[in-house]
Amino acid sequence: MEDSRKRVEVCFTPGEYPYYKDEFEIVVVIDVLRATSAICAAFDNGIKSIIPVPTVEEAWDYKLKGYLAGAERKGQIVEGFDFGNSPFSYMREDFKDKEVVLTTTNGTKSLDVAKNAEVVVVGSFLNLDYLSKWLAEQNKNVLCLCSGWQDKFNLEDTICAGAISDYLISTGNYTSIEDSSIAAKYLFLSAKDNYLGYLKSSSHRRRLKNLNLNEDIKYCLTPNQTEVIPILKDGKLVKL
Amino acid sequence: MEDSRKRVEVCFTPGEYPYYKDEFEIVVVIDVLRATSAICAAFDNGIKSIIPVPTVEEAWDYKLKGYLAGAERKGQIVEGFDFGNSPFSYMREDFKDKEVVLTTTNGTKSLDVAKNAEVVVVGSFLNLDYLSKWLAEQNKNVLCLCSGWQDKFNLEDTICAGAISDYLISTGNYTSIEDSSIAAKYLFLSAKDNYLGYLKSSSHRRRLKNLNLNEDIKYCLTPNQTEVIPILKDGKLVKL
Repeated sequence: MEDSRKRVEVCFTPGEYPYYKDEFEIVVVIDVLRATSAICAAFDNGIKSIIPVPTVEEAWDYKLKGYLAGAERKGQIVEGFDFGNSPFSYMREDFKDKEVVLTTTNGTKSLDVAKNAEVVVVGSFLNLDYLSKWLAEQNKNVLCLCSGWQDKFNLEDTICAGAISDYLISTGNYTSIEDSSIAAKYLFLSAKDNYLGYLKSSSHRRRLKNLNLNEDIKYCLTPNQTEVIPILKDGKLVKL
Repeated sequence: MEDSRKRVEVCFTPGEYPYYKDEFEIVVVIDVLRATSAICAAFDNGIKSIIPVPTVEEAWDYKLKGYLAGAERKGQIVEGFDFGNSPFSYMREDFKDKEVVLTTTNGTKSLDVAKNAEVVVVGSFLNLDYLSKWLAEQNKNVLCLCSGWQDKFNLEDTICAGAISDYLISTGNYTSIEDSSIAAKYLFLSAKDNYLGYLKSSSHRRRLKNLNLNEDIKYCLTPNQTEVIPILKDGKLVKL
């Protein structure tokens, strides 16, 4: 009997995306610390659209044209830009109904890599349950694309991807066959009661902690703070 | 105070090796199902040396010169070759003191990728404790290089790498800072009481089971069957 369930799989890094694509109608781009969390926070705060660009140069070109533009590299705001990827920097009154430009170390790179997929949405702990339920309603094959850290695996994106997979599989309509997805689910299940504690030794968390970004980390690891799903349309992120 | 501990890290796939190399004096190549298990079994059985080659064509050239040559692709012996990568195929009386040639889907590819490291040794569950103790005595930085499955992450290599890391860290002289290494250790700790059960849903185990290779799987997942450490010297694997 053929298995009629849809697939939900986890890809650990943008570099491995070519081995996965083609089989999935929906790609969920995840960069928990902090790009996709910041993007969810921005739409929750009423931003109109975000133009994600892979390089600082492209972001700067937009800034010269008069756009509000954000750029983050190595966890910090690039000099001369208006903001970086702290979720709190998007909670500004003057961002409402604005179109802004953003480039980050890892997150906007994954958005760029995935841009030709049928549907590209943005996931984080902030919109976890709302996004997972929406995905289940679509009944399509889903790939969770983790942004990682400089082309390497990271724990927080993987755990978020594992949470989404676990939800979809629990509906009975989804299955995972890749070992990466099975590992992500195992890691989520052992982390879910205490994300902050579980991730205390994670390399990226340590890196941000050194930059005194503890409030950002706590915020980004707190599930279900918003009911928005940012979606990529014609090269711009907008609210679904 | 500077941390004087050595590092032990885990790289999930040969494709990611470039992001890790240079920092590690010793690379442990792991392909549990089945290349590095078969290589350990071969040395346990008294083989003299194994010449690992990345392609079937290179292995065939050796065969034409009169070598005993093995080739595995998609889990099966390539037509015309003398053997594949089942550990049992190396338990032959006529292999004692012989030099043979081998190419496999994943394992010989990792050996090729890592060949310029200072020291390259072969790891598997079969020589787990013996190898781990030897590594601890070297007191050098260690990278566990998982072979994965066709450039993707796999569970069994990761768990074996996690076991080696866990041992080295338990000595107090080693630490891990990469998220991949932390994940490997978590996965090992939840798998260690029942490897076969834990890996029952793993993609590669399913694939081999379909080829009726259950005996191979059980053998490869049984730790500490031998005290050999295959090491790469001038392009050949020999017993340390």
